Amino acid sequence: MLVPAESWGMNVAIVLFEGFDELDAVGPYEVFQLAGRYGGDLSAELVTLEPTERIVARSGMRVEPDGTLDGTDVDLLLVPGGGWNDDGPGVRVEYDRGEIPDRLAQYHTEGTAVASVCTGALLLAKAGLLDGRPATTHHTALEDLRELGADVVEDRVVDDGDVLTAGGITSGFDLALHIVARECGESVADSVARELEYERVI
Amino acid sequence: MLVPAESWGMNVAIVLFEGFDELDAVGPYEVFQLAGRYGGDLSAELVTLEPTERIVARSGMRVEPDGTLDGTDVDLLLVPGGGWNDDGPGVRVEYDRGEIPDRLAQYHTEGTAVASVCTGALLLAKAGLLDGRPATTHHTALEDLRELGADVVEDRVVDDGDVLTAGGITSGFDLALHIVARECGESVADSVARELEYERVI
Repeated sequence: MLVPAESWGMNVAIVLFEGFDELDAVGPYEVFQLAGRYGGDLSAELVTLEPTERIVARSGMRVEPDGTLDGTDVDLLLVPGGGWNDDGPGVRVEYDRGEIPDRLAQYHTEGTAVASVCTGALLLAKAGLLDGRPATTHHTALEDLRELGADVVEDRVVDDGDVLTAGGITSGFDLALHIVARECGESVADSVARELEYERVI
Repeated sequence: MLVPAESWGMNVAIVLFEGFDELDAVGPYEVFQLAGRYGGDLSAELVTLEPTERIVARSGMRVEPDGTLDGTDVDLLLVPGGGWNDDGPGVRVEYDRGEIPDRLAQYHTEGTAVASVCTGALLLAKAGLLDGRPATTHHTALEDLRELGADVVEDRVVDDGDVLTAGGITSGFDLALHIVARECGESVADSVARELEYERVI
């Protein structure tokens, strides 16, 4: 189960890192923020582990984070993908560095739900959160995820209670809309999808 | 027709303003940048009219622009929407201010193709670029666009040669993939859609 929203609502912390895929983060971010506009008790923040003035995403967009993970109320921790199959910064570098996986494991142990979009799932796997559990990722990383011990499911969204994973990039919309439906009800999710002019698939 | 790409390729300048809808801009941005990775001679930049350290988008994301419109090679000028129906910064404020419409009219007169996503179409209308021409916008602004003289078409993408418009938010993916297909060929557009795990609709 997702951790119950506090009285001030559910806050999703989206963890940014150099080379994150723009849409993996911005898609869910906008879905969660729109849910707030449509009466859902839900919000999202773009955070980093360390204080940073800017993060450069995979395709070059420069974002100023809202703050650090430690300074944020977190009911759900979401990790974007980007850069598992590329040279340069991104998921593979963060996988090797291990700091994001360590924090994911810590937050999860403390009872926080975690989610990934795209190859962000590899960071959940490194954190030991996908061992023998159903999960998905970008189609180019399914084999790697299987080798890391996940019970790979080829679907756009896999909801295993306190661990949720999405497929490639635009699957992040489906994951976020699913979470909105779960937390705020179908009608809020429908309103957000209509605003986005996006067809809900789950 | 789109202005033919120069020898160094086609560059899309995406014009940001306070209150722009995140995905209206970031969706096409990532599509164009991925097209470049998949062999398309195409790139995109996030620009503002005046030098600015950061722009705050509609749902709160803070972006550092790549530079100003004047300092950018522009083959296609793309305007996101956001804020036509809201209080606060966004398309309605820019519509009243008139600077973006003035620049759109100027660039178009000089031969540059222009495109909009979502309620960005209202800025094209203010620029006089949609008079009697087929165009679309977010479903909440179709009537306003009609009253401003456009020949409204309720579709996700309307390609009228040197003026292209998209429907609401996620229609920007379809517009950008259509432009990629037109400029770089179907196979590049298919590769980008596969990377995004997004189904092409046109």
